[in-house]
Amino acid sequence: MEQLEGRESILAALRAYQRRFEVILVSHGAHREKIEEVLAVAAERGIPLKQVDRKELDALAHGASHGGLLAIVSAKPRLRPSDLPEILSRLSTAPLMLLLEGIDDARNLGFTLRTAEAMGACAVLVKKHLWDFDPVEVARPSSGSYERLPLVQIDDVSPLKQLQRGGLRIFGCVAGAKRTIHDVDLTGPALLAIGGEKRGLSGAVRSICDRLITIPTAAKSTSLSLSHAAAIVLAEAARQRKNF
Amino acid sequence: MEQLEGRESILAALRAYQRRFEVILVSHGAHREKIEEVLAVAAERGIPLKQVDRKELDALAHGASHGGLLAIVSAKPRLRPSDLPEILSRLSTAPLMLLLEGIDDARNLGFTLRTAEAMGACAVLVKKHLWDFDPVEVARPSSGSYERLPLVQIDDVSPLKQLQRGGLRIFGCVAGAKRTIHDVDLTGPALLAIGGEKRGLSGAVRSICDRLITIPTAAKSTSLSLSHAAAIVLAEAARQRKNF
Repeated sequence: MEQLEGRESILAALRAYQRRFEVILVSHGAHREKIEEVLAVAAERGIPLKQVDRKELDALAHGASHGGLLAIVSAKPRLRPSDLPEILSRLSTAPLMLLLEGIDDARNLGFTLRTAEAMGACAVLVKKHLWDFDPVEVARPSSGSYERLPLVQIDDVSPLKQLQRGGLRIFGCVAGAKRTIHDVDLTGPALLAIGGEKRGLSGAVRSICDRLITIPTAAKSTSLSLSHAAAIVLAEAARQRKNF
Repeated sequence: MEQLEGRESILAALRAYQRRFEVILVSHGAHREKIEEVLAVAAERGIPLKQVDRKELDALAHGASHGGLLAIVSAKPRLRPSDLPEILSRLSTAPLMLLLEGIDDARNLGFTLRTAEAMGACAVLVKKHLWDFDPVEVARPSSGSYERLPLVQIDDVSPLKQLQRGGLRIFGCVAGAKRTIHDVDLTGPALLAIGGEKRGLSGAVRSICDRLITIPTAAKSTSLSLSHAAAIVLAEAARQRKNF
């Protein structure tokens, strides 16, 4: 069982139909207009509601932004590379994907999912052998994106090679590359690969990139954080694509 | 007294000459190549060093990324609007500034300082009556930017009007504005104003903006977080300016 906190996450999960809802806890004194949409969908689906004290909810919640709503739900099914063809088949535009390597902070992953969805990415791939994220910590900053955006775990680069054979180009973001994110054409089927702050992209991923690109930054500044680097390169792809 | 954690923050503070260093704690077993630059500067300036157990340092530190270094330092002098003319007089290019309104998370402020410095901003203004940030929580994710980048607290919009009279244009980022960040010229003296996630920009700030602009996002996505919205609009300004 997992828990979802706050209106955005709960509504997103209700609409995504990927989790079973055991119960939704509603605190006494929650703002009616903030919770009524959740209550209406819950009633329609026959999901049990339980009134609890605000203090009880605060004690259960990981964060402070639940707004009086907390749902106990089944885990979200984990996607695997074999799910990618179906995800891609649903698209009407050139796919834009994000690959994160060496990410180990659940909150940063949540924020990155939120930005990736807003910038029109169709999936986020995470290269990681051991999946040790606390799902509540991912879901909360994602503001619902964790429920909607396909998140695919990969163990090695073979799914990336498969995508390349299908015509997708892989752009690896690294410090000091000759080309900047503005010098390359990101309008075709593209995967943007970003490495963690400690080690950057692995040799295995670098070696299969079609292009290495860099985000131009001021001379004496330090490197960007992973989630902010991802935001900037995703936004550049969205700008070039004129998607919205 | 405040504390600084990790090589990046400590080196940045040593180089910025804005804090008095009481002592630098070094844990037994810290990687020599990671700490030797700090030790060299400390020796040069006569700053006391103290060897401590790793456990002792872990207990003192707020985060896990101190790498065996923690400094006890005087507070950083807070900048006020009256310091802006001097900051602006040092620039050789059109100033790019960021205004954050309604930001209440120290970590998000730290990340935003880091991005703002990397994108070439000359100062970050925070509109806030009560300054209640934990400086350690700001400094840590900023990776040294907190030491280098001028951070100015303002209480009302009068310093903004003053900047406008000096030729600076204020761009307010709001949801649903007609013009996007790509439709406006951000190459002149500019201040980018971004509001918190709960309330956005206040009426007082909106009313004095020269232009309201929006970041284009996918239809069904939720809003961006403040620090990621800031990253995207700052990167667009840097792209237009071709600064780096």
